[in-house]
Amino acid sequence: MNPDRFSINQMTVKQLALPELVAACVRLGVPGVGLWREPVREYGVEAAAALVRDAGLAVTTLCRGGFFTTDGWEEENRAAIDEAVTLGTDTLVLVSGGLTPACPDLPSARARIAEAIGALAPYAGERGVRLAIEPLHPMYAADRCAVSTLDQALEIAERFPAGQVGVTVDTYHLWWDDRAPAAVARAGAAGRIHSYQVADWTTPLPAGVLTGRGQLGTGAIDLRAWSDLVEKAGYTGPVEVELFNDDLWARDGEQVLEETLTAFLAV
Amino acid sequence: MNPDRFSINQMTVKQLALPELVAACVRLGVPGVGLWREPVREYGVEAAAALVRDAGLAVTTLCRGGFFTTDGWEEENRAAIDEAVTLGTDTLVLVSGGLTPACPDLPSARARIAEAIGALAPYAGERGVRLAIEPLHPMYAADRCAVSTLDQALEIAERFPAGQVGVTVDTYHLWWDDRAPAAVARAGAAGRIHSYQVADWTTPLPAGVLTGRGQLGTGAIDLRAWSDLVEKAGYTGPVEVELFNDDLWARDGEQVLEETLTAFLAV
Repeated sequence: MNPDRFSINQMTVKQLALPELVAACVRLGVPGVGLWREPVREYGVEAAAALVRDAGLAVTTLCRGGFFTTDGWEEENRAAIDEAVTLGTDTLVLVSGGLTPACPDLPSARARIAEAIGALAPYAGERGVRLAIEPLHPMYAADRCAVSTLDQALEIAERFPAGQVGVTVDTYHLWWDDRAPAAVARAGAAGRIHSYQVADWTTPLPAGVLTGRGQLGTGAIDLRAWSDLVEKAGYTGPVEVELFNDDLWARDGEQVLEETLTAFLAV
Repeated sequence: MNPDRFSINQMTVKQLALPELVAACVRLGVPGVGLWREPVREYGVEAAAALVRDAGLAVTTLCRGGFFTTDGWEEENRAAIDEAVTLGTDTLVLVSGGLTPACPDLPSARARIAEAIGALAPYAGERGVRLAIEPLHPMYAADRCAVSTLDQALEIAERFPAGQVGVTVDTYHLWWDDRAPAAVARAGAAGRIHSYQVADWTTPLPAGVLTGRGQLGTGAIDLRAWSDLVEKAGYTGPVEVELFNDDLWARDGEQVLEETLTAFLAV
């Protein structure tokens, strides 16, 4: 893949403090980063914005808004949109939330998610931030995200202007779905692919299934086919590598970043 | 649910040897069991058949054939069909297999699976055994089963007579899928629901994600809605409780069986 489109998601090398991450990106010629709210807020949103801006780095996404099935979602998500503006990114990734006492089953959770996105979309659009609904793998349907397929995400996104709401295509979450290729084409044609993230699928999965995303090229996903698919759908934006992986986190962050860039170029 | 339709899958109480399982079923008035090939072969297929027959137990399914992406699948599956005949069950559950060197990606695995089922269907049909393709949760797509949705399973089954090939509907694998209800209705209308299995979805998932199926009523799945759905589709056969659960396996098997029956009746 084209190095100019590479972006490193902050979680891939979360062992690096923000200034270390930025310095490593500059040294390695990495053009973009996907940031996470928690470490950014810890560092200070304004300070983080200045740090990446001064380094000439693009902020490809802010991760993440969402969790709409939990009380307080509206205030939290408005804050996330404001932080995206400050950081200079046009894309807020949404992990929509799972089952909660307020939304104890999938139909009620999905209805709440659509309703919440409708409430936020104009606020985001007015500020130049696009909401990118991320379908998560069905193994997270109960506890993290009741939106499990790209078709479901698109079905919500399509109720709003593409400049307000689109989707995140993440190979880790979608690779198994034989309907995803058609949905990617549909999303691309409508200009609704607001983020493209890549990770590989490796087994066995670890307990909790959160921290076993494989380095590119080490797992089951045909990442070349996926990137062709997304490109053919008309997406020309950044390709963000987002790995949650205990083994990678235990190692030297800059080395992992360099290795990730190499793996990316090899796809 | 109706106690006359209850069947206990052998894996739910695998700590019980086959004679213990049969005796416990008789004591508790459990009318049916779903058996597994490995423990049955260990006990002796003929002897197992005599044991359950003499106890008046119905064998609701034999688990399992499949693994079509691995060498030797044809001989193995013919043997499984023959064992089903000996055990007096009309249903062989198929777990179709994941990615292997011979089938390194999902399209090739899925093509192989359809081809293999086509080769086996007449052999099964001639012997009065119905193949029941079981879609497994997408988290198993790489290593156990490239058939991840009921739509995919049906798309294969529909190429053959319903008396030869149908599907297994298992709540654990399908609960997240918003397209599953329509597929259940379609499968039922065509007489292709050859097995209905139930388990609940509990989190966090354990490492390897094989042994975390929840006792009925302890997880995220609306089992009443699922059973209504399957019933409305015209299915009136046995309801097999199949739990793979380390905590349940660590306990007294007969107590777990009794508790499972109670949980079943409460749904």
